[in-house]
Amino acid sequence: MKHSVLFVTTLCLTSFLSAAPSIADTAKQNGLVAIPQDHKELLKLTDPNSTITPEKVELGKKLYFEPRLSKSGIISCNTCHNLGLGGVDGVSAAVGHHWIPNPHHLNSPTVYNAMFFKAQFWDGRSPHLEDQAQGPMQAAPEMAAAPSLVVERINSIPAYVEEFKTAYGKDVKIDFETITATIGIFERTLVTPSRFDDFLNGKADALSDAEKKGLQTFMDKGCVSCHTGIALGGTMQPFEVAGKYKFAAVGDFKGDKNGMVKTPTLRNITETAPYFHNGAIWSLADAVKEMGSTQLGIVISDEEAAQIVTFFAALEGRKPEITYPQFPASTATTPKPDFK
Amino acid sequence: MKHSVLFVTTLCLTSFLSAAPSIADTAKQNGLVAIPQDHKELLKLTDPNSTITPEKVELGKKLYFEPRLSKSGIISCNTCHNLGLGGVDGVSAAVGHHWIPNPHHLNSPTVYNAMFFKAQFWDGRSPHLEDQAQGPMQAAPEMAAAPSLVVERINSIPAYVEEFKTAYGKDVKIDFETITATIGIFERTLVTPSRFDDFLNGKADALSDAEKKGLQTFMDKGCVSCHTGIALGGTMQPFEVAGKYKFAAVGDFKGDKNGMVKTPTLRNITETAPYFHNGAIWSLADAVKEMGSTQLGIVISDEEAAQIVTFFAALEGRKPEITYPQFPASTATTPKPDFK
Repeated sequence: MKHSVLFVTTLCLTSFLSAAPSIADTAKQNGLVAIPQDHKELLKLTDPNSTITPEKVELGKKLYFEPRLSKSGIISCNTCHNLGLGGVDGVSAAVGHHWIPNPHHLNSPTVYNAMFFKAQFWDGRSPHLEDQAQGPMQAAPEMAAAPSLVVERINSIPAYVEEFKTAYGKDVKIDFETITATIGIFERTLVTPSRFDDFLNGKADALSDAEKKGLQTFMDKGCVSCHTGIALGGTMQPFEVAGKYKFAAVGDFKGDKNGMVKTPTLRNITETAPYFHNGAIWSLADAVKEMGSTQLGIVISDEEAAQIVTFFAALEGRKPEITYPQFPASTATTPKPDFK
Repeated sequence: MKHSVLFVTTLCLTSFLSAAPSIADTAKQNGLVAIPQDHKELLKLTDPNSTITPEKVELGKKLYFEPRLSKSGIISCNTCHNLGLGGVDGVSAAVGHHWIPNPHHLNSPTVYNAMFFKAQFWDGRSPHLEDQAQGPMQAAPEMAAAPSLVVERINSIPAYVEEFKTAYGKDVKIDFETITATIGIFERTLVTPSRFDDFLNGKADALSDAEKKGLQTFMDKGCVSCHTGIALGGTMQPFEVAGKYKFAAVGDFKGDKNGMVKTPTLRNITETAPYFHNGAIWSLADAVKEMGSTQLGIVISDEEAAQIVTFFAALEGRKPEITYPQFPASTATTPKPDFK
């Protein structure tokens, strides 16, 4: 009988506690989603017909850091999406080949957790990372490399050819699509679980009281209307953005067909200043207030902005440990660096 | 008695074998020196009053990859001395801030094994790595950062200040000299033991027969008159170089006071094209023949050059495994990137 009493008491207590929804539950009801605890499971989940293998990931990592994929031979993906700097370059507008700033004054978005985005680039014109990687490699003010140059460089280096064969089989055609797709596969592993995920996954003390309060303010103010889903942003097409105001166009960049830009992720946001598609604002609190004003049409006070920024610290993620790659040497037939 | 006979026989055989000096012995007699098998011992050996600690090495690594040590915020030591590319950039003349090539058209020397050099820079004007690191950081066509900017950036980031305190004690003054010295300390760990070292250390089959033949040709031709010591180069001041011919000055670079440049290391030479202080030659065989002609005043045939290049493969070193660092975030007081 003692056991039964204890059992009933426990049940009642559980019912009582769950009657008042926790802030974690409220967050989930608001569309916020945790990164699952098992990383490998995550890769399977997001790619049901998974072709992601350790060999492809390792090769993709090498290519991600490979400066010879640029015309000059000195700019890599990591130059503008630095894995040590929150996946960005920390400057307002990306600067690439010939020291030319992005002509649209666009800020480099983070590569961390970019796999969760429904569309890539600020105007959402690319459907996924494997496609996205083709853009900056060719863009004149970025890596400035013709696809034929990229293909020729890689195919001129026997060790790279061998690695592609190991990853894709001996009949692999090492073309521009395969090279960029391999980079995209590596980028899918760049997922950063944070204390916020631990919190949503049931660890109630993963957030401090101040961070919980900030999370509440974040939800109360309506930030979740855009910054939602597993990445707290990026899960909508630009034209699905619920904001009333369009971003000011800079240069000849007009956003998508409706003049909108994508909602960026808030994961690791404390590490990725300056903010917005044009990198115009350096202070995170100012950025929060600006979004309240231009997107939600409300005033977010200094105190509320500070609370929200406090919460953002809980979104700083644990980065995958990356061993810096050793690149195979160029050969006599490798196209030379070209700074023109 | 059986034991004694065996003992005497063994002794005789040993005497017979050592009567004909091995090629490894000849190499040692020619001044070639192996990297000791124990890396940690090596660090102690080269720095008897060792102040090298794991904390300083880790911090130095972070600073080595840190792009915010440049004026623009996008160029790090690793940009021109890429640890994945044999410690170089693979271009003729380094290109840095504002896309300006080195005005003297100087080629970036490798950082691997640079700790063994008697003097740093092509003209040997710097006595050691800790001093050397101050140069490129300030040079207008390289990282272009005033020492005050570097100091201000680091001191504006509390996590960096903490790391310096951990490494040097709570009263550390984080000045330009301390920052660059810490980079130098990391660079001292960039030592790459190779099969050639295994060979000198007694592993007779570490080199193939073709590589042994190449080593013999390398010595017979007199290459060891400059490419000697533990780094096969770099252990002499420029003015101690025994060559008859001076390098052609490029730009307004005149070499040292005698118009000479330093003998570079041959370790990892297969990975560090293009060659010479002006990066003028891309083919290693051509470089070997050019040195025979301009430095030794002899003709090295195609066949001999090929033998020597075959030997060079044995100088490809095992690189230390480097975990790519996570940099602490900038703060409101961190000086902004400056592309001017």
